[in-house]
Amino acid sequence: MSILVVGSVALDTVETPMGKVEDEIGGSAIHFSAIASLYTKVNLVAVIGTDFPREEIRFLDERGVDTRGLQVVIGETFRWSGRYDYMSNITETLDTQLNVFANFHPVIPEGYEKSDIVFLANIDPDLQREVLEQVPEAKLTMIDTMDFWIENKRESLIKTISMVDIVTMNEGEARLLGKTESILTAAKGILDLGPDMVVIKRGEYGCVKVDKDGYFTAPACLLEQVKDPTGAGDTFAGGFLGYLDQTNELTEPAIRRAMIHGCAAASFTVEEFGVERLRTLTTREMAERYQEFYNFSHLQDW
Amino acid sequence: MSILVVGSVALDTVETPMGKVEDEIGGSAIHFSAIASLYTKVNLVAVIGTDFPREEIRFLDERGVDTRGLQVVIGETFRWSGRYDYMSNITETLDTQLNVFANFHPVIPEGYEKSDIVFLANIDPDLQREVLEQVPEAKLTMIDTMDFWIENKRESLIKTISMVDIVTMNEGEARLLGKTESILTAAKGILDLGPDMVVIKRGEYGCVKVDKDGYFTAPACLLEQVKDPTGAGDTFAGGFLGYLDQTNELTEPAIRRAMIHGCAAASFTVEEFGVERLRTLTTREMAERYQEFYNFSHLQDW
Repeated sequence: MSILVVGSVALDTVETPMGKVEDEIGGSAIHFSAIASLYTKVNLVAVIGTDFPREEIRFLDERGVDTRGLQVVIGETFRWSGRYDYMSNITETLDTQLNVFANFHPVIPEGYEKSDIVFLANIDPDLQREVLEQVPEAKLTMIDTMDFWIENKRESLIKTISMVDIVTMNEGEARLLGKTESILTAAKGILDLGPDMVVIKRGEYGCVKVDKDGYFTAPACLLEQVKDPTGAGDTFAGGFLGYLDQTNELTEPAIRRAMIHGCAAASFTVEEFGVERLRTLTTREMAERYQEFYNFSHLQDW
Repeated sequence: MSILVVGSVALDTVETPMGKVEDEIGGSAIHFSAIASLYTKVNLVAVIGTDFPREEIRFLDERGVDTRGLQVVIGETFRWSGRYDYMSNITETLDTQLNVFANFHPVIPEGYEKSDIVFLANIDPDLQREVLEQVPEAKLTMIDTMDFWIENKRESLIKTISMVDIVTMNEGEARLLGKTESILTAAKGILDLGPDMVVIKRGEYGCVKVDKDGYFTAPACLLEQVKDPTGAGDTFAGGFLGYLDQTNELTEPAIRRAMIHGCAAASFTVEEFGVERLRTLTTREMAERYQEFYNFSHLQDW
């Protein structure tokens, strides 16, 4: 079993009430891979500039991530700069320099097309479809998106949504897309476009999954300190899909467990800036955190 | 078993995106009693003016609520007017007329002092202590509060908090009281003041309980339409304490179940303006909603 991830690799400059980092390695493909590689084989497709400190992501090689799909283009790596309001789930983008990401077209190396699961992180919905056309035999496909595409490429995004199995986004984005304040109504609207499942991320409150049979709410853990929320959503996806690929089961109980794996992954991510916490994260620590989630959310003898 | 509730009775003028009502009966004591009376005997202490439409709360008499403690004072009933932003958990108070509530001093009728559980809804912390001194034998005491008392009567509030078993408030209020963005840190700070348990309400995201052994997160259900959030917190308290009094058990599993009863109660409250939904609510409907909570939040075969 394996997962293909297509997304960004970035150098992030991030300011939170807990501090500031400059040119920290990040991007959806990196965050996703850092977690998913704890569960399964990850095939990565993304682009970096010649300025990218390649040694900084050596830990992904050690976890067996296939980086043949990581294009290196002459120029500068995609840079994002943002500031977070304290645990408010509000992100203010201060600067975005697309650089080599501007002309990125995903190229799927030989063998990658056999990936069982495909995760298309938050990139242009046109590019997401370019990938989908190259992996017609994927067993499970999931996309993430963001407000920019909802507002500026709505029709393209809807076309992409209609082609995939699972759609994930933040609750603010779901409301924007669904033009409603109810995330349940928004999710039902997305299901009507074609997908089997919608997973809505709610920041410090966890996430919710909606499908034709109903919904499931997964909690987040309470934290006394959040150093940097960057990548929480992508590592949620990494734990969610990583577990599903590893368990090779798409039953309701497995999906529920996968959501807790995702929430547990995100809870580690925010403990440190960038991917610092994820470099040394072990499957044992993930299992322990999973157990904590069980302990603080389970209803004993109902 | 029985519960003593001391709180407000009000005539609410409420505007939400779903409509507007004027002089709708409300107040913490009414909302709390409407739910708690489905579980146990409720003894009510509050004050109304001579203008209050007494027949509007006849349904509480039918549910066995003892209203001997409902003082009738010449003058006008407490009035509150507010507007809600769509499902955002933001309440804007437009007007408050204390009227007869301004000079309210709780008087505990004979027999009430034998109540096993005492709930002091959001009133002046000085008054909350006046009640506590009159019920020294209560087995379980809980207070609610609000930003106004945190900001203007902090020392008095802290004194009251030190005297009770459980403290409940909204997460924004917990942050304000704890001077921290982390509700876990805030809750631990409240525990240090004396109580055994803190229950923090998180609006559409459910609630969380913190005690010395850790915490428990209870979800809220997803709703496609929220007509009026007024009273959600008080009916949470009604379901929570109502169940605890009925079950007469203070174990961790019972407390967790009680929190779901509280969240289920709140989910009914917001379906209609004021107490409209609660007038006809049955224990059978509560049991069914409880089962729904189980279905959408339970992790099968972990």
